[in-house]
Amino acid sequence: MTETGKVFIVGLGPGPDKWLVPEASAALAEADALIGYKPYADRVPERAGLERFPTDNRVELDRARHALALAQAGRKVAVVSGGDAGVFGMAAAVLEAVEQGEAVWRALDIQVVPGVSAVLAAAARLGAPLGHDFCVLSLSDNLKPWEIIAKRLRAAAEGDFVIALYNPASKARPRQIFDAFDLLRETKSGETPVAFARAVGRPDERIVLSDLATADPGLVDMATLVLIGSSETRFVARPGREPWLLTPRSYGLGR
Amino acid sequence: MTETGKVFIVGLGPGPDKWLVPEASAALAEADALIGYKPYADRVPERAGLERFPTDNRVELDRARHALALAQAGRKVAVVSGGDAGVFGMAAAVLEAVEQGEAVWRALDIQVVPGVSAVLAAAARLGAPLGHDFCVLSLSDNLKPWEIIAKRLRAAAEGDFVIALYNPASKARPRQIFDAFDLLRETKSGETPVAFARAVGRPDERIVLSDLATADPGLVDMATLVLIGSSETRFVARPGREPWLLTPRSYGLGR
Repeated sequence: MTETGKVFIVGLGPGPDKWLVPEASAALAEADALIGYKPYADRVPERAGLERFPTDNRVELDRARHALALAQAGRKVAVVSGGDAGVFGMAAAVLEAVEQGEAVWRALDIQVVPGVSAVLAAAARLGAPLGHDFCVLSLSDNLKPWEIIAKRLRAAAEGDFVIALYNPASKARPRQIFDAFDLLRETKSGETPVAFARAVGRPDERIVLSDLATADPGLVDMATLVLIGSSETRFVARPGREPWLLTPRSYGLGR
Repeated sequence: MTETGKVFIVGLGPGPDKWLVPEASAALAEADALIGYKPYADRVPERAGLERFPTDNRVELDRARHALALAQAGRKVAVVSGGDAGVFGMAAAVLEAVEQGEAVWRALDIQVVPGVSAVLAAAARLGAPLGHDFCVLSLSDNLKPWEIIAKRLRAAAEGDFVIALYNPASKARPRQIFDAFDLLRETKSGETPVAFARAVGRPDERIVLSDLATADPGLVDMATLVLIGSSETRFVARPGREPWLLTPRSYGLGR
């Protein structure tokens, strides 16, 4: 191992450059190797001196090990995720690879660069749905059993948190979001505001506002961030535009 | 009302410019009026054409109404928060003021700009503690009764979420964080990793790593982000440095 190797774990934000933090830009400028799932790696402009290792491989641990091996060989590697790399992104995958891997990897210089997560971008687009306590869950059962997802959904409903759902559906998993809505409908009011915020900040952005009783989970895909309100969340009407979504800062103290 | 008034609600991130998103910089450059609690407003450099209305007033709704009145008069107003304005910041306060205020305010051009929230910056600093599902709670009972905070803490523990606590203590509220730890100790393992991440990214940053049984809530102040792990969260040792904090992406599937 040389002294110069480094791994930057970089969140690219939800898409547009206006949400890429300067520290991420600096890391991408310093790196000489780029590793990421292709749709994310493709967001980083080509430049001389930056060797690209994009992959269609969905096995994140393989990508993480590749990055660590390159850093061990002295490379400065940027490992990129969409949104924030710490929220269902590559930060955990890289540190899992460190934990399981060669002892020398623990001495590598690894820096996690925070980013704008999808839930924060969606919240800003919708108004202020996260003005009070909230939970963030991934609905993917690739890495956890459905039972723990169901347990957490029940706990989030019991705590009356605003609930943000990542990875709500994919072609291989079209049913979880229906099951999740069925479960939440058992305990939460049908009038609870719901938002489907798809591809926020990108050209194919689509916002659907609804309520828990009538929301159609069939509109949800992998690029959709699903927000389900607390008992205090409400819409604030605007003339000629979609309403704002607001969870006020106070709770249970009357309006 | 002129056609040119606008309100930008801007999260400045946790402190350093490296975490200020370009959209926030652009909004601050376009604004001709700046409103914010003084410690946040002071972070925005002075420049000709930007009139400052800093305040020591802790009543956020007053600040929000001031911003809306200025925008109604044609001003371009930047309302600033630390971190992300949507997470216990000014976005909810401004939309509450819209909801309660003059009908014409609903037609104002209001834009929420997302930012790097304290929890994301702390997570990046610590490793990957948010690699799996998590909850974000404010411990302040200024705007909600303690009973709802306790209910949510119990639900978060029941769901085995990673728990991030904002506003854990202040001079006026020194006891809540002790009560919260007492409550969590009833149900969660004493070996659960705990992190106190104070002022991450700022000169007075201080990180304390511990576990639920032995963590001292007396170390916590208003600038501290408290992270409490799930049953899967663990430390990953590094030679000569503090360990990483990791919540792996998988759950209940063995290591």
